[in-house]
Amino acid sequence: MKTATRIAILVIIVVLIASVAYARFAKPQDAIQYRKAIMVLIGQHFKRMGAVIKGQAAYDPAAFTADAQLLETLARLPWEAALEPGTDRGDTTMLAAAFKKPSEFKATAKNFEMATAQLAKTAMEGGGVGSLKAPFGSVAQSCKACHKAYRK
Amino acid sequence: MKTATRIAILVIIVVLIASVAYARFAKPQDAIQYRKAIMVLIGQHFKRMGAVIKGQAAYDPAAFTADAQLLETLARLPWEAALEPGTDRGDTTMLAAAFKKPSEFKATAKNFEMATAQLAKTAMEGGGVGSLKAPFGSVAQSCKACHKAYRK
Repeated sequence: MKTATRIAILVIIVVLIASVAYARFAKPQDAIQYRKAIMVLIGQHFKRMGAVIKGQAAYDPAAFTADAQLLETLARLPWEAALEPGTDRGDTTMLAAAFKKPSEFKATAKNFEMATAQLAKTAMEGGGVGSLKAPFGSVAQSCKACHKAYRK
Repeated sequence: MKTATRIAILVIIVVLIASVAYARFAKPQDAIQYRKAIMVLIGQHFKRMGAVIKGQAAYDPAAFTADAQLLETLARLPWEAALEPGTDRGDTTMLAAAFKKPSEFKATAKNFEMATAQLAKTAMEGGGVGSLKAPFGSVAQSCKACHKAYRK
């Protein structure tokens, strides 16, 4: 086999492996729908915790901890859904900046993951609403930072 | 104060308390959007596990376990979103049967919760793809049973 042919085959194999590794979503719209679903759930449970923090809803330690743990789980779901080229078009508010600057985007997402983990940890310690205000504020800040940079 | 007035005030208080207890969603569309988001995530991660079960994707024990645990978490999210009257209209495929027969609906949902818990447990035991086929099949069956009864 000629060297050129060998290289060509090797390139095809590498491309195929890379495609399979990224092919978690059959089409861009699936990735958009997936990340929007995560945001809907995050929004709903964040709002429930926010009402407690603002004193608009009673503090139920078990419910608050469940909300915080769910947020931590959702924050860790694959950000790859935001890194699929072409998913800045269609039914989305995401900016192409996310997959044009993947390392910066991932760092912003990591801040969110860490903030939600800290909130869940604090909630489990059961120190009352007073102890939750600062970590909840950090989660809110990390939401805003990411939306400001990557949302239309 | 007249008895009638007292009763009227009592009724208003009871109705208000009941409303607050149910007012997790500001409007019916929020409940619809919430449960649809859960279904999108369940669908995506169920599909990923399905590909492994069918031999179309490589078995990565850690990834499969993460998918199964996520499914278990999502299955336990508040089914109250399906029990809000009026949410059989609009952008939904849910039948009114869900909130007309809440105890039957909850029993069907409970089967799904138990099946996903069993799948996550089996996945954590790390017995290979062979051990996952039966519990995965039970999850698939519980999906179908609920969709058949409560989906348009």
